[in-house]
Amino acid sequence: MEGGIRCSTNYVPLSPISFLERSAIVYRDRTSVVYGSVRFTWRQTLERCKRLASALVQLGISPGDVVAALAPNIPAMYELHFGVPMAGAVLCTLNTRLDSAMISVLLKHSEAKIIFVDYQLIHVAQGAIDILSKTRTNLPLLVVIQELDQPSPDVSRSRDFEYESLLARERVDFEVRRPKDEWDPISLNYTSGTTSNPKGVIYSHRGAYLNSLATILFNEMLSMPVYLWCVPMFHCNGWCLPWGVAAQGGTNVCQRNVTAKGIFDQISQHKVTHMGGAPTVLNMIINAPENDRKPLPGKVTVMTGGAPPPSQVLFKMEELGFGVIHSYGLTETYGPGTICTWKPEWDSLSRESQAKLKARQGLQHIGMEELDVKDPVTLKSVPPDAKTMGEVMFRGNTVMNGYLKDVKATKDAFNGGWLRSGDLGVKHPDGYIELKDRLKDIIISGGENISTIEVESVLYTHPAVLEAAIVGRPDDYWGETPCAFVKLKDEFNTCAEEIINFCRSHLPHYMAPRTVVFDDLPKTATGKVQKYVLRQKAKAMGSLSKKSKSKL
Amino acid sequence: MEGGIRCSTNYVPLSPISFLERSAIVYRDRTSVVYGSVRFTWRQTLERCKRLASALVQLGISPGDVVAALAPNIPAMYELHFGVPMAGAVLCTLNTRLDSAMISVLLKHSEAKIIFVDYQLIHVAQGAIDILSKTRTNLPLLVVIQELDQPSPDVSRSRDFEYESLLARERVDFEVRRPKDEWDPISLNYTSGTTSNPKGVIYSHRGAYLNSLATILFNEMLSMPVYLWCVPMFHCNGWCLPWGVAAQGGTNVCQRNVTAKGIFDQISQHKVTHMGGAPTVLNMIINAPENDRKPLPGKVTVMTGGAPPPSQVLFKMEELGFGVIHSYGLTETYGPGTICTWKPEWDSLSRESQAKLKARQGLQHIGMEELDVKDPVTLKSVPPDAKTMGEVMFRGNTVMNGYLKDVKATKDAFNGGWLRSGDLGVKHPDGYIELKDRLKDIIISGGENISTIEVESVLYTHPAVLEAAIVGRPDDYWGETPCAFVKLKDEFNTCAEEIINFCRSHLPHYMAPRTVVFDDLPKTATGKVQKYVLRQKAKAMGSLSKKSKSKL
Repeated sequence: MEGGIRCSTNYVPLSPISFLERSAIVYRDRTSVVYGSVRFTWRQTLERCKRLASALVQLGISPGDVVAALAPNIPAMYELHFGVPMAGAVLCTLNTRLDSAMISVLLKHSEAKIIFVDYQLIHVAQGAIDILSKTRTNLPLLVVIQELDQPSPDVSRSRDFEYESLLARERVDFEVRRPKDEWDPISLNYTSGTTSNPKGVIYSHRGAYLNSLATILFNEMLSMPVYLWCVPMFHCNGWCLPWGVAAQGGTNVCQRNVTAKGIFDQISQHKVTHMGGAPTVLNMIINAPENDRKPLPGKVTVMTGGAPPPSQVLFKMEELGFGVIHSYGLTETYGPGTICTWKPEWDSLSRESQAKLKARQGLQHIGMEELDVKDPVTLKSVPPDAKTMGEVMFRGNTVMNGYLKDVKATKDAFNGGWLRSGDLGVKHPDGYIELKDRLKDIIISGGENISTIEVESVLYTHPAVLEAAIVGRPDDYWGETPCAFVKLKDEFNTCAEEIINFCRSHLPHYMAPRTVVFDDLPKTATGKVQKYVLRQKAKAMGSLSKKSKSKL
Repeated sequence: MEGGIRCSTNYVPLSPISFLERSAIVYRDRTSVVYGSVRFTWRQTLERCKRLASALVQLGISPGDVVAALAPNIPAMYELHFGVPMAGAVLCTLNTRLDSAMISVLLKHSEAKIIFVDYQLIHVAQGAIDILSKTRTNLPLLVVIQELDQPSPDVSRSRDFEYESLLARERVDFEVRRPKDEWDPISLNYTSGTTSNPKGVIYSHRGAYLNSLATILFNEMLSMPVYLWCVPMFHCNGWCLPWGVAAQGGTNVCQRNVTAKGIFDQISQHKVTHMGGAPTVLNMIINAPENDRKPLPGKVTVMTGGAPPPSQVLFKMEELGFGVIHSYGLTETYGPGTICTWKPEWDSLSRESQAKLKARQGLQHIGMEELDVKDPVTLKSVPPDAKTMGEVMFRGNTVMNGYLKDVKATKDAFNGGWLRSGDLGVKHPDGYIELKDRLKDIIISGGENISTIEVESVLYTHPAVLEAAIVGRPDDYWGETPCAFVKLKDEFNTCAEEIINFCRSHLPHYMAPRTVVFDDLPKTATGKVQKYVLRQKAKAMGSLSKKSKSKL
């Protein structure tokens, strides 16, 4: 329209950097970050992030360079979420459970110029660099992050830099490098990184900005929330909440380790209003010994995701005074992509019905344009009959830019104009989706689809079961049969037959497990069960049916 | 970064249209709009807006065409905020207090192809078209909006179209025309339109999207709010809340007229959670006769703006149970541009101190990048001393695209890279800004600046004063002297001398008015006092000082 002029007066590329700059004015003297006896205000956090950005530029970081970080949820990890983008660089947070070999692969793939490492993980990072040094000369610089109030002796090593010392000598009047285009990358998140090729998911400033606002909104996070960090910031950038909490001028309660006692202590001490965690964290809370518990100072909203929360877990969480909200997404959707918006009319339903409804993945949040369940081949939407399965697909501004250096993988993921989640689900008559399984996890037994999630949710209702996972065991006759891996609660005991009979009384016969293994469950750093490990174990067991039977 | 692919899977131009499309799924059966006995759900609202967009296309509307609307806050006005953009067109809402002559000027300037008119305003619109017909042949089509439950006889007129009939014959499967670029215009808002040349402020889809989210956030609007419409939707698109309420799946309580009784009735009946209004609306509420009042069913958050709320008004609103939040902005900033964020530590201050703090304009909201108070010539920021005055300036994504067909005016407004507000203010030590006056309203008396806002705030504390405004009266000796226009409360009486003495006991002598006129105050449709009318009156009075005195 004639008369309009697009210029810096009315057009600023969207970036979470704006959240911090604004909060350093509006909420300047309020606590931004608290960690043990350490406490910063928003004004100080901006200052520290500017010093950090300035240090990165001094160390030779150019716009678009990758800066890696290997650390738990400590203040420096929070600051890296702003300081790195403020230097125009891209933050690559690494899973703290990875070993040196995998870290070396990711450092090589991302071409990280610097790696920030928590003092407890120096050996892992140094090991990775040692591996790299065998084939490369241009190695990433290692910056050590000391515990804030107790400097360790490691600093003296000549080629290491130390985080606080770097900050101390830098300028607070550093001129922030804003993205030229809001599509520019802000971070790089490697998906699980436990199998095959690493995939580096690229997040943009625009997507991070929009997913942060969406996440604030569906968490019903009013201004100045107090957020307890249980979700690792290295996982999908902490579901975008390092940026989201800054947007609302909240307080970030940081903690190095996640324990039930720590959670109750921090909630009580800091009057926490919001937190997040995978169902395993919820499990930890409800199974906490009596001595570790403290009464909640008020309502605590817990966003959970990563796996649907079992109904027993929900009941107990709500008895303790937590309000659980259920979100679902992928690394490729900046973490949260959906929210199971609670309908007021559900309040009057039975507890069991409520738990079933809450276990649904729901619908797209406000930052995501479209969510659908489609036939993966024809792309036809499934009918909203709660029965027909299809692949869950996303489209919108909070879908990743793509996979680093892997246009083919990006094209495959976007095949047909939708992000393929690899998750199988159904659509309920009210539009809400519900996951049934991973495309690769679903068991096909005698031609019937068996949703492992459904079987697991029954197992979780058994009083002796602490954790459970179902995978397919190869079978000469049925193709596959369900095999349960179960971890029992400390004080309980039971046998395979009892578990199988329990399932048969709650499920169609063919869905009940034929095999039960009592064992610890292997998990990723974010608490997801590693089913591919269990599948290997089940495969090693061989067929349950005799060869001869397959002739029938 | 190599590997990223920008495509429709991960990039969708931001538009408030997305809010409606999403709410029609998530909140499908919840009430979207209620108006007397009329009630729609979000699914129905989307359907009606699609029919409306389809009708516009049938009537020949092309992308970028302007569609005008002249109506109070009725359901059709709400639907036009989505239906017009969904046809790719630009919504131009007109002030319902304008006369045919001014409407004809705006229709001509905007080149509106269609005008939607409430049945009570047909004569105004028809009058405007009659004026246009003298010089043009290509006249805008007139579509009449009937009262929803009582069709009027006017429909039969052959060249008129009727809103509901148009919708009834259209298709619900209309394919929505999304903006190609989020910078594309969504609406056109003429500034006051009471003086000189009309200025058509262009809003973009992007700016509207971002200002809607910012406004939701600073209103602390959780999901499914109940919003009572008192702010005219024709004014800055109702402060972006037709879109914002859709984003949160709320209920829009529409009403044709704003009365104290109506406000209390609607709040009570629909359990209103949020509303907005200029201080005159707040005045109306606190001065409501006892019989018109009803107890509030819960906390009602009222966003006020347009003028700082006088402390007495704030006290009384809060006694009644309303929580008042104070925002400030311009038509050029999509309405709200700042928010006076309340600091918890202020809770313990005296009521008077709290009122003074709440009357500040505060700081930029989350959608606005920067706010500053600067010397209008040098662009140097004023010190945060609460004393030095400068011009309030904005920069960010929620600043208008520009003025329609007036690049020169756009350039002037953006001169130096900042949107010039034309408002004078100071910056407090905590960064919060406080307006002192309009650049053109400030009184200069004997070389001293007199903030008319400060004098008015003292007048408002006088028990007999209902409304007050100060302008400069020309003076041969002092240049100007303060002249007060005062409207008294019904049951009160006083004299000029008493008012002057009251001011002198609360203000420096030179700031107190020398003249007091008891009269009704002329106002714009949004409740702002038309000071230029009062200045004309004051000018007509002539100098208070004798000519001879000016020789001294």
